[in-house]
Amino acid sequence: MTEASSFTDNDLHLLDRYWRAANYLSVGQIYLMDNPLLREPLKPEHIKPRLLGHWGTTPGLNFIYAHLNHAIRQRNLDILYICGPGHGGPGMVANTWLEGSYSEIYPDISQDADGMKKLFKQFSFPGGIPSHAAAETPGSINEGGELGYSLSHAFGAVFDNPSLIAACVIGDGEAETGPLASSWQGIKFLNAARDGMVLPILHLNGYKIANPTILGRESDDNLRQYFSGLGYEPLLVSGHEPEKMHRAMAGTLAVALDSIQRYQQQARSGTAPAELPRWPMIILRSPKGWTGPQTVDGKKVEDFWRAHQVPVSACRENDAHRDILEGWMRSYHPEDLFDEHGQLKRELQALAPKGDKRMGSTPWANGGRLRRELVTPSLTAYAINVQSPGETQAESTDALGSYLAGIFQHNADNFRLFGPDETASNRLGKVFNVTSRTWQEPVKSYDEQLAKDGRVMEILSEHQCQGWLEGYLLTGRHGLFNCYEAFIHIVDSMFNQHAKWLKVSRALAWRKPVSSLNYLLSSHVWRQDHNGYSHQDPGFIDHVANKKADIVRIYLPPDANTLLCVADHCLKTWDRINVMIAGKQPAPQWLTLAEAEKHCAAGMGIWRWAGNEQEGHAPDVVMACAGDVPTMETLAAVDLLREYLPDLRVRVVNVVDLLALQTQDQHPHGLSDEDFDALFTADTPVVFAFHGYPSLIHRLTYQRNNHRNFHVRGFMEEGTTTTPFDMTVMNELDRFHLAQEAILRVPALQGKADDILDALAEKIAEHHRYVREHGEDLPEVQGWKWPSQQGGENIPE
Amino acid sequence: MTEASSFTDNDLHLLDRYWRAANYLSVGQIYLMDNPLLREPLKPEHIKPRLLGHWGTTPGLNFIYAHLNHAIRQRNLDILYICGPGHGGPGMVANTWLEGSYSEIYPDISQDADGMKKLFKQFSFPGGIPSHAAAETPGSINEGGELGYSLSHAFGAVFDNPSLIAACVIGDGEAETGPLASSWQGIKFLNAARDGMVLPILHLNGYKIANPTILGRESDDNLRQYFSGLGYEPLLVSGHEPEKMHRAMAGTLAVALDSIQRYQQQARSGTAPAELPRWPMIILRSPKGWTGPQTVDGKKVEDFWRAHQVPVSACRENDAHRDILEGWMRSYHPEDLFDEHGQLKRELQALAPKGDKRMGSTPWANGGRLRRELVTPSLTAYAINVQSPGETQAESTDALGSYLAGIFQHNADNFRLFGPDETASNRLGKVFNVTSRTWQEPVKSYDEQLAKDGRVMEILSEHQCQGWLEGYLLTGRHGLFNCYEAFIHIVDSMFNQHAKWLKVSRALAWRKPVSSLNYLLSSHVWRQDHNGYSHQDPGFIDHVANKKADIVRIYLPPDANTLLCVADHCLKTWDRINVMIAGKQPAPQWLTLAEAEKHCAAGMGIWRWAGNEQEGHAPDVVMACAGDVPTMETLAAVDLLREYLPDLRVRVVNVVDLLALQTQDQHPHGLSDEDFDALFTADTPVVFAFHGYPSLIHRLTYQRNNHRNFHVRGFMEEGTTTTPFDMTVMNELDRFHLAQEAILRVPALQGKADDILDALAEKIAEHHRYVREHGEDLPEVQGWKWPSQQGGENIPE
Repeated sequence: MTEASSFTDNDLHLLDRYWRAANYLSVGQIYLMDNPLLREPLKPEHIKPRLLGHWGTTPGLNFIYAHLNHAIRQRNLDILYICGPGHGGPGMVANTWLEGSYSEIYPDISQDADGMKKLFKQFSFPGGIPSHAAAETPGSINEGGELGYSLSHAFGAVFDNPSLIAACVIGDGEAETGPLASSWQGIKFLNAARDGMVLPILHLNGYKIANPTILGRESDDNLRQYFSGLGYEPLLVSGHEPEKMHRAMAGTLAVALDSIQRYQQQARSGTAPAELPRWPMIILRSPKGWTGPQTVDGKKVEDFWRAHQVPVSACRENDAHRDILEGWMRSYHPEDLFDEHGQLKRELQALAPKGDKRMGSTPWANGGRLRRELVTPSLTAYAINVQSPGETQAESTDALGSYLAGIFQHNADNFRLFGPDETASNRLGKVFNVTSRTWQEPVKSYDEQLAKDGRVMEILSEHQCQGWLEGYLLTGRHGLFNCYEAFIHIVDSMFNQHAKWLKVSRALAWRKPVSSLNYLLSSHVWRQDHNGYSHQDPGFIDHVANKKADIVRIYLPPDANTLLCVADHCLKTWDRINVMIAGKQPAPQWLTLAEAEKHCAAGMGIWRWAGNEQEGHAPDVVMACAGDVPTMETLAAVDLLREYLPDLRVRVVNVVDLLALQTQDQHPHGLSDEDFDALFTADTPVVFAFHGYPSLIHRLTYQRNNHRNFHVRGFMEEGTTTTPFDMTVMNELDRFHLAQEAILRVPALQGKADDILDALAEKIAEHHRYVREHGEDLPEVQGWKWPSQQGGENIPE
Repeated sequence: MTEASSFTDNDLHLLDRYWRAANYLSVGQIYLMDNPLLREPLKPEHIKPRLLGHWGTTPGLNFIYAHLNHAIRQRNLDILYICGPGHGGPGMVANTWLEGSYSEIYPDISQDADGMKKLFKQFSFPGGIPSHAAAETPGSINEGGELGYSLSHAFGAVFDNPSLIAACVIGDGEAETGPLASSWQGIKFLNAARDGMVLPILHLNGYKIANPTILGRESDDNLRQYFSGLGYEPLLVSGHEPEKMHRAMAGTLAVALDSIQRYQQQARSGTAPAELPRWPMIILRSPKGWTGPQTVDGKKVEDFWRAHQVPVSACRENDAHRDILEGWMRSYHPEDLFDEHGQLKRELQALAPKGDKRMGSTPWANGGRLRRELVTPSLTAYAINVQSPGETQAESTDALGSYLAGIFQHNADNFRLFGPDETASNRLGKVFNVTSRTWQEPVKSYDEQLAKDGRVMEILSEHQCQGWLEGYLLTGRHGLFNCYEAFIHIVDSMFNQHAKWLKVSRALAWRKPVSSLNYLLSSHVWRQDHNGYSHQDPGFIDHVANKKADIVRIYLPPDANTLLCVADHCLKTWDRINVMIAGKQPAPQWLTLAEAEKHCAAGMGIWRWAGNEQEGHAPDVVMACAGDVPTMETLAAVDLLREYLPDLRVRVVNVVDLLALQTQDQHPHGLSDEDFDALFTADTPVVFAFHGYPSLIHRLTYQRNNHRNFHVRGFMEEGTTTTPFDMTVMNELDRFHLAQEAILRVPALQGKADDILDALAEKIAEHHRYVREHGEDLPEVQGWKWPSQQGGENIPE
């Protein structure tokens, strides 16, 4: 451990007082609603009726914050403080108030006694602020709720931000989670020349809610080996005596920052050695609930899990407990910290950085302030040439890959593509014409598309892809996460938390909009026939549909040009989560670019060229579809119906913007009832072929006039390794079943089309026989094309 | 590296031939539908039309399998082979066929040329078997689809199985995932005296689908440090020359098994040193696609990612490719491996273990064979005494904790409780009266409820809790996972995969039923007022409801006695996933144990004592509820309605078994339409107070006669840190909003109850004022009790 020569005794004593001030304010937030400066003895009515908050981690967070302040001032750094143990919210609030960031954003919470009283009362109080660091907390980019994502957020934040250091505090509880355990590998994706740096600070206070932590009980030797094996240089700071700890922390931080600056300089001047440097990380062992009550009612509290939340309870009712609280708070000597107006004493104020250098004011924690618009190329160059519907075959995601290559070319440091080793598999490989995968370790002669300055981020961890992208977006950039559809469920909970973050931050005027989080889900349920049942799951969109309508969008483009339009739209939006689902296999193309643009703008529409309605007559049946494979099967079913029942009036409706099915009061994109009825009618049978679980369509349309007539086919949770068409047959979403369903639902056909139903049943039986013998789909299915002579006028204006 | 003296040259040559046989069969499965023994030159028609499967990992899996066979025979071990890279399905199938397990289970796939032909054709073929190791695969307990869970399954499998060794192969792709990265810590929860042992075999073949792997490119030195830091003794086997590799692997495996047996003996004889041993783990570096084509069309295949799936494609159409395939297959010298009948040569047959020692036949991979019924105590001792509805207050999960303590007492080695550091927080602490938390590291004097032989498994990783429990259940035992409701989404995808596994395994007669996977979700959305928005999410049940109706159950017990009945039922079931959601806070108790039993058996019912219907009159409004907080708010709303509108005929319906709301054809528990209408009527307004997102109730009931009249209140995705009652007000689920809704929905009251609506609106305004001033709920809300004088007859027979 090195002692920083520049950390004087005076620095130490001032910094210790600053730390005490933060600790004092943290305790005050948990306990007090009045008498904030303890100008009179504590009385029951000064204490909040409900004591909520987490003390245990807070003194450590405050300790780190104070030392980072010191380093920022000394070295003129830009540091983003990522608070993994964000349930230590009082600490983040206290520090941003001390440095002035808080009162600038929330002027009502002024930097004086009156503001301090409000600061205390509002915490965890109805109408006030949450108990955890959250969107409301200045300087925060993640909410202190679900644990596991701090370090991946930190890496995401510093990619393409060469001047930024993300100081990421990781609690020993969080360190047990899977996502966190894998996120240490982020260091291997960081390019010191182009990116900023993450300084992980593993804060071992030894305990979780009611248990010791695994890493907290590890020997120093094992910890050193573990982090060395991960490629770091671990630096330990351990103890409980404030003076010694201050010196140790200041010295260690200096060593770490020296290393970071040296390695960055080498990388940026081209003088770096071939071997990758071991980047520093700090292990800080300090007692849980440090400086709080040692025991309460004879039970150990400090340095134990009992310090986790409120160390001494019922201080309103219990005089002895209130005495403990008062003694505890006075042990920080508030009179030594705040002047007669309740302002932090001038010499302590000087310890905070100024302006945007303050960690509560850094623009990187309010990424919308830094966000530059994405430059998107014209779609014309990437569009598929569609002469007539169904004639051309193309791979939707291949076209998107070309477009994304264009995005990369126009946005050299402002866009990245993320994926769990699936970018090529999802057929986005055209991006590799203009960039590579990020890879910092040695590259072998036969490796392909790996480069230190690659911009495609691939790691076999959906958690890291999502966490990196969130960090990248929240600091003002743009990105897309491509993933197999089934496995995006791995980040269901991360999606939840990001959606919650967006919901809250959108309501805060000071938080500027950040780019939307965009998902491209490919290798979807209908085309994972080769990988089997574990890879077949379309349920993510059900999960997404639960979130606030303002935040979420779900798109099911039926072909490549619609995918291009949808992606181009999504990439330009902000403060949303967009889900796009598209196949990667060669498939028929339906719409020209111009038609696709109109169709996507409308969200859904009648494909008149595919139906055979007659002017002035209502259709006999509406064949609706959402998703690329359901669209193809629907058109093939219509083809069969035309053959068998040429007089049947069929309408085809295709849905791209799924949530537009909802009513206007349920979703901003929701169609009016009038517009909905114009498409789906008020009383005609609707056979709806859907990409996902059928119940979602019922859930979205149950308020519609014609809902009783909706007959939805989708994924019935039947799957295995088989052929693509057999997947649809297993789930009764294939053309034959859809045609049967249509016939069965048209009242006028009842009892009059039994021969056709039999013929369709025989088709299904023939399929079963053929596929089991030959291992591939019926030639008539494989070779099916939409008969172009049926093509009439295209979708209406 | 130690050379095992017992591994002779003859052993080596036989084992190498066995390995070649497995490799031959693996390639055959991917490519051939005829000519299995290559008795004639390969022709196009011998090749499958679609080539599906994963070669890359397979030779390594086969290599390990052959060496484990050797060790089993030498040491008479029970080894469970957990195949993390389960997409190497051909290897698992090949080996279980070679050893005879496969043909015993599937007699049609006999051990001869005819069987081999069928074995080849069925693989990845419609009507055949999946391409990955799956439920269909003998010897497997996890499907090779989603990666990340193999090592947690392995630990779960060996808990309380002292004679078992789980040899867990982990691919370097899987090793990048979060869940896998944290699962190495499982070793710290393993008690060598009582549990079996996991032997992790990290298989570094260097590449994923299209990328190098992180660990594959690590230096040996970093790998050693990493695994040493985690508490293991890493043993490296590295190379590509078969003979050297066989010797190295045999020697290393001997060292590892010696260590395991020595440490186990020490632990079991009480002679273990105080310090925990470093358990061995093996790092096997071998080329991806080992022994396959080195190059194809001039491109590197072996030892590169191009070997991942089908190394040489289009062998039907492309003669040169077919030649490569034929040369590759013949390089294994099938004539040297199989006799004229296509049977494995006798001297090679002798290499497989016998009977249940075969890894494809081990009963631990078919846990139902070993499953002993759980002994459940009578509920009487744990029931809450309820004299009249609403009079008693109790904590539901506290009562459950007492019951679980009883379970522990009756099932000393057959039940465990899992939770992410939340068992105490979820108020199940009574279990600590009879057992402790599992903790193998040193225990400090002031630690509480930690013990080497504890049976409560706590780690701050939902992934590990779920993975351990799955492994424990799949090997024949019983368990319960308790978790905060919001964070169970972390394992959404694991839930999916387990549900899929159960669906498939239930259809396989040879797979015996395993105990259900039981979730207790507490600290639920309505009582995470203190932790804030990130902790407020009831969406898991939406996710669950998507899965096959046969598999899933969702229970929302309204009080402690119903929770006891539900839990007692769930713990006795098999091959299902049961979700129970119950609060942990003191709350009014409604039903006696006898009433609870009847209510739970019915799934839902009218609470006549709570309503005021009149004989012979239809109710004016049905107040329905599901969930403990919604039930309380509904009864409080009914209390208000009685006060304001004593003549209003109100019916109260409580729903415990949520999926019984579905129709009979949707779910086995579904009520008949007649029974449903008897509860909810065909035309009366229903105000439904629901625990989760309102849309779920619509989705479950849209086919019901009275669906149009369902007005559902639930979580509207509004939350923050506030009071419990304010949570319900924010989401309009509180008594005042429910009473308003009831009045607005009763036609006879239209325009006649505006004063009451105003009074209710004023109540809401009063709440807002009060809670923001005092920080706690209105006294009348906090002190509310169901007026016992209203109590009439209890729920009907």
